[in-house]
Amino acid sequence: MNSIDLNADLGEGFGAWRLGDDDALLDVVTSANVACGFHAGDPSTMASVCRRAVEKSVAIGAQVGYRDLAGFGRRRIDYAHDELRDDIVYQIGALEAFCRIAGDRVRYVKPHGALYNTAAVDELQASAVVAAVVAYDPALPVLCQPGSVLAVRAAEAGLTAIGEGFADRGYLPDGRLVPRSRPDALVHDPDEVVARVVQMAVDSSVTAVDGSTVECRVRSICLHGDTPGAVRLARAVRDGLAGHLTVQAF
Amino acid sequence: MNSIDLNADLGEGFGAWRLGDDDALLDVVTSANVACGFHAGDPSTMASVCRRAVEKSVAIGAQVGYRDLAGFGRRRIDYAHDELRDDIVYQIGALEAFCRIAGDRVRYVKPHGALYNTAAVDELQASAVVAAVVAYDPALPVLCQPGSVLAVRAAEAGLTAIGEGFADRGYLPDGRLVPRSRPDALVHDPDEVVARVVQMAVDSSVTAVDGSTVECRVRSICLHGDTPGAVRLARAVRDGLAGHLTVQAF
Amino acid sequence: MNSIDLNADLGEGFGAWRLGDDDALLDVVTSANVACGFHAGDPSTMASVCRRAVEKSVAIGAQVGYRDLAGFGRRRIDYAHDELRDDIVYQIGALEAFCRIAGDRVRYVKPHGALYNTAAVDELQASAVVAAVVAYDPALPVLCQPGSVLAVRAAEAGLTAIGEGFADRGYLPDGRLVPRSRPDALVHDPDEVVARVVQMAVDSSVTAVDGSTVECRVRSICLHGDTPGAVRLARAVRDGLAGHLTVQAF
Amino acid sequence: MNSIDLNADLGEGFGAWRLGDDDALLDVVTSANVACGFHAGDPSTMASVCRRAVEKSVAIGAQVGYRDLAGFGRRRIDYAHDELRDDIVYQIGALEAFCRIAGDRVRYVKPHGALYNTAAVDELQASAVVAAVVAYDPALPVLCQPGSVLAVRAAEAGLTAIGEGFADRGYLPDGRLVPRSRPDALVHDPDEVVARVVQMAVDSSVTAVDGSTVECRVRSICLHGDTPGAVRLARAVRDGLAGHLTVQAF
Repeated sequence: MNSIDLNADLGEGFGAWRLGDDDALLDVVTSANVACGFHAGDPSTMASVCRRAVEKSVAIGAQVGYRDLAGFGRRRIDYAHDELRDDIVYQIGALEAFCRIAGDRVRYVKPHGALYNTAAVDELQASAVVAAVVAYDPALPVLCQPGSVLAVRAAEAGLTAIGEGFADRGYLPDGRLVPRSRPDALVHDPDEVVARVVQMAVDSSVTAVDGSTVECRVRSICLHGDTPGAVRLARAVRDGLAGHLTVQAF
Repeated sequence: MNSIDLNADLGEGFGAWRLGDDDALLDVVTSANVACGFHAGDPSTMASVCRRAVEKSVAIGAQVGYRDLAGFGRRRIDYAHDELRDDIVYQIGALEAFCRIAGDRVRYVKPHGALYNTAAVDELQASAVVAAVVAYDPALPVLCQPGSVLAVRAAEAGLTAIGEGFADRGYLPDGRLVPRSRPDALVHDPDEVVARVVQMAVDSSVTAVDGSTVECRVRSICLHGDTPGAVRLARAVRDGLAGHLTVQAF
Repeated sequence: MNSIDLNADLGEGFGAWRLGDDDALLDVVTSANVACGFHAGDPSTMASVCRRAVEKSVAIGAQVGYRDLAGFGRRRIDYAHDELRDDIVYQIGALEAFCRIAGDRVRYVKPHGALYNTAAVDELQASAVVAAVVAYDPALPVLCQPGSVLAVRAAEAGLTAIGEGFADRGYLPDGRLVPRSRPDALVHDPDEVVARVVQMAVDSSVTAVDGSTVECRVRSICLHGDTPGAVRLARAVRDGLAGHLTVQAF
Repeated sequence: MNSIDLNADLGEGFGAWRLGDDDALLDVVTSANVACGFHAGDPSTMASVCRRAVEKSVAIGAQVGYRDLAGFGRRRIDYAHDELRDDIVYQIGALEAFCRIAGDRVRYVKPHGALYNTAAVDELQASAVVAAVVAYDPALPVLCQPGSVLAVRAAEAGLTAIGEGFADRGYLPDGRLVPRSRPDALVHDPDEVVARVVQMAVDSSVTAVDGSTVECRVRSICLHGDTPGAVRLARAVRDGLAGHLTVQAF
């Protein structure tokens, strides 16, 4: 591997409400996870983000989520399998229309929030995500955590599972993320963030919270766009990576 | 013209709520206006209606509406132009995904409810509908009332405007529909409905409420699916038409 | 105990969509669980059901649910405690306005669907329901399953927990309901339903699916309003109970 | 009149999305127009704003709007009369619950956005607002523009109509606001804003865009909370008014 992708969540406003600095992030990332209207993202925001992403040659992915604007897709919902599959297909299709108008197409799918976390461990929801992508377009890669149930089921179904690492999250010795309830869930020091990201991209490993070195095979790095200093940190990560390998979409 | 299309609104339930007899209507109509989730129609209903429409060789159209589940898209909303355009694009794209999975594609666009009525007389909303279709796919026909602002603007923009007549509605001498507030808004007698529909399809005219004969050039007849006896009436209309010309999608 | 209450879910339409026969049920039940807009129930439906319930001297309860119109409140959602509490308070307050206009007030609270089932076994959600009622009005009873976590927590908090039995559901030997996935989840024979209900009301017991007699101390019987023959069965249950004790709200 | 009220819209976030600086504004205003969930405002935000408003002795009003989260209540919707009335009652009741828990009650009603503008000129919508307040509690004042249709109909129905002036808006010679599409719609200079507000409060007049002096009898001044520098301007207005009369809720 001599290239690495940088992805971030974009288009997560809704109507009058804004979230994050989409324009600034589009100058840094190589892949934009565009919210598709169920947890965030109104159609005009989707249209606008797709247009600018294409202008800046940023790949567009469908950031699909639960139907839960009030909870921003962060609350697990016990969907029936087929309802979840169909909600995901609907969102991909809606985004595809804006990609098409902007002159591109949906390049990948990434579950959002509680769907991301649930599909990483839950057979039913992982299977529904896989079923949606298989039905819609089996050539679409799925962005997910390496080793997750979703990654495994996607690969079994013949989909391309793209593993991603988290720039500012602590890792457990078994490769999972430190739960957000713990004080060491987040890495705050920008220099440390950059160093960790380079380690992931170059050495395919990460230093866990107990000091051990854990395998972490990723082709993309996830940046957070809605934290203070997010854009500056994103640039530092990109610059750090660019010293070692090509930063481009997978 | 030696063929006529029969269209009806389908897939207008939402979640636990059902409306109309989709299966029975799919045996009668040649074009299904499938609700796309904004005024009605959840993703699983859309998936199911598309699947069955394809099985029965019924053409699928995007029945696009205002974002107003509580009002079933029947209340005029003063959208800004671009927001309405983008809401329509979103809905077409979402439906396209289910068409694609079912083995077909969206064949036309028909505005629903208050959007239909408003776009028939309002420049801004007619223009937004046209802009959405032009951006998404200028080869898509728009189903609308002959002579309406939408029909005129669609044609000017190079779109195909398909005129439709209403099986069970009274007409004014100027070719417009009798407002629903009037007692003669609806034609109730099944035999009369069939005779009127045949007149529209064969003679391109309709008898207005004052007895005069009005030009009515239509390539499709709209049936209502949610009234008592709707399915029986639909069959009578189809049988009546079939005695004179081919009943098939435009 | 010489009286028994009959409750049913009412007002579960939304906008153009109807569900169940509210008018007919209001002639049978003594307590109406009125949907409050989150899983079903638009404001005009709430207003109308409250007005008619007061006319017929039927007690009005707040049937509070998850914010999930698409799922009809039947999908478990992992709310944070305070968000669930506040969503419940909001719904009670909204219904109270219509009760007040109709000349009465909210008489009790009953969780709906997946919230009912989850609060029966989950400490966080039971506690959120209890916190909502304690904050809003600790004099309001909570309708729930006898022995459930919600019943226990409600009683501990000083609330009145009203136990209810299900007219047409099978019971396990431990007093819980047979899961809906099992073939013996529902009792279909009307005579058997009536006999079971009388046994619950008069003997405080129910015959479980293995033939054993289980204690079942209930002050209310829950009828389902949206099944075929629901109204007729409801009348049969009421007539059956009336031969043994007074049928009236708790 | 020797006192003046200062009102502003508060609690207009939704879920993860924030809008304006509620805490800072609560230190300045005497009346808080709290969004009630239809155009903005989730239950937990409502609970929190009510709690803090009561702590700071700020009066709470129901800022009722159209059911339109995507449009933030800024798009006119052609409601039927009774549906609009019932949507408003629902919102007042929901807010009342949080007021009650916070130790107070709803003190007034103010329509939001397009409902405010429409009810100022449209008989049906003005009448629906009045019908909602009359039904819920005819002792509740309605905050509106002096001379508007809503003000007139409210007074006719026996309600108290509280006239309000806009701190930063230009006025036409006939007393109406300059439409937002015109360049002189907004007054930007802070000193001028303060001088105008004092003129309204002390002299019951305002200088129109043509230089003429227009009568403007108001008991409340509306501040905008979501513009840059909003909080500083609000403090300047309050300080300016306090030099002339008592600043307190009506």
